[in-house]
Amino acid sequence: MRAKHLVIVSCLFLVGVVLAACTAPSATATSTAEQQNQVLKGHFARVRTVAYSPDGQTLASAGDDQQIILWNTVTGEQRRTLKGHFANIWSVAFSPDGKQLASASEDQTVRLWDVETGREVVTLKGHIANVRSVAFSPDGKTLASTGDDMNVILWDVATGQQKQVLKGHEATIWQVVFSPDGRQLMTGSSDATVRLWNIQP
Amino acid sequence: MRAKHLVIVSCLFLVGVVLAACTAPSATATSTAEQQNQVLKGHFARVRTVAYSPDGQTLASAGDDQQIILWNTVTGEQRRTLKGHFANIWSVAFSPDGKQLASASEDQTVRLWDVETGREVVTLKGHIANVRSVAFSPDGKTLASTGDDMNVILWDVATGQQKQVLKGHEATIWQVVFSPDGRQLMTGSSDATVRLWNIQP
Repeated sequence: MRAKHLVIVSCLFLVGVVLAACTAPSATATSTAEQQNQVLKGHFARVRTVAYSPDGQTLASAGDDQQIILWNTVTGEQRRTLKGHFANIWSVAFSPDGKQLASASEDQTVRLWDVETGREVVTLKGHIANVRSVAFSPDGKTLASTGDDMNVILWDVATGQQKQVLKGHEATIWQVVFSPDGRQLMTGSSDATVRLWNIQP
Repeated sequence: MRAKHLVIVSCLFLVGVVLAACTAPSATATSTAEQQNQVLKGHFARVRTVAYSPDGQTLASAGDDQQIILWNTVTGEQRRTLKGHFANIWSVAFSPDGKQLASASEDQTVRLWDVETGREVVTLKGHIANVRSVAFSPDGKTLASTGDDMNVILWDVATGQQKQVLKGHEATIWQVVFSPDGRQLMTGSSDATVRLWNIQP
């Protein structure tokens, strides 16, 4: 009776050891991941676009609740809430010096914001449909925006004036990107073409 | 009769001058824009995502036709066509050294490609739904991917192995971005939260 007992206890012990060995690593990994995870609450709808400031100290998030939130990347606290857009926001981009943020929205505007004060610097009007993508030139002087009206507009960041309208695409443009040297723009569109645009300095 | 004729001719001339003056600048601007515009044909469906290589020599485009095309940014010619995905592609990213390209697709995989040869290096399997965003760490050693399964997977670029699965979001994750120093990840989700993840080195 005692021997039978011992065998059962030993078996249970072995099963326990095996189970522990099998489950321990994944359990540890999960708990580690949870500890690392800082949940930033403030939006009340989908967050579609996120961006780090060039120095990594601030991050910007935006989406369907029409507001942009700037967060402290260390503490996770809200720094600023940027309000002004009145439709979904598709894209945000920090200027290369990190002082300004640009945002593109379905309200057909691009907005430039002062990161320090949280104030809107200027509303860039010219698109006549959803704006889906925005990008700063590497020197920070030019902003490119594009979307459903099939135009790319180049803006003078200092004055807020339109510098050029690039026409040619025949359907929604989803993304605009500057080349690393800033002399070229690339766009991708629902018209199944990619276009390269050589930019005048 | 002659005077009347002269008046009419003069009027027509004046109208012509005014029309020419009004239309000339915009016509010039348009033609300039068209000259600058290089149309890269090869896709046969929406181009959703585009990216420049770090040296600006190559660009990658992808979208709903399931292929990635690498283009020469000077000539506009196709360098490589990367085939393997069997659903829409949502995101492409060059490695910091420009030698590899990562792609994220609705076929639930992330793929790593050799930019020089155009060959697929590895298919990264682990997601169980559409993959929507992919990003390289600044040191190029880690790849982060995310999407509709609400997980962020960190991959070892050298081995193709999963390093970590970051869980917490409760809806589609639209974008994952590394902080400039590579120690942090940020994600934005349809669950209306932004999350910061501190990465183990």
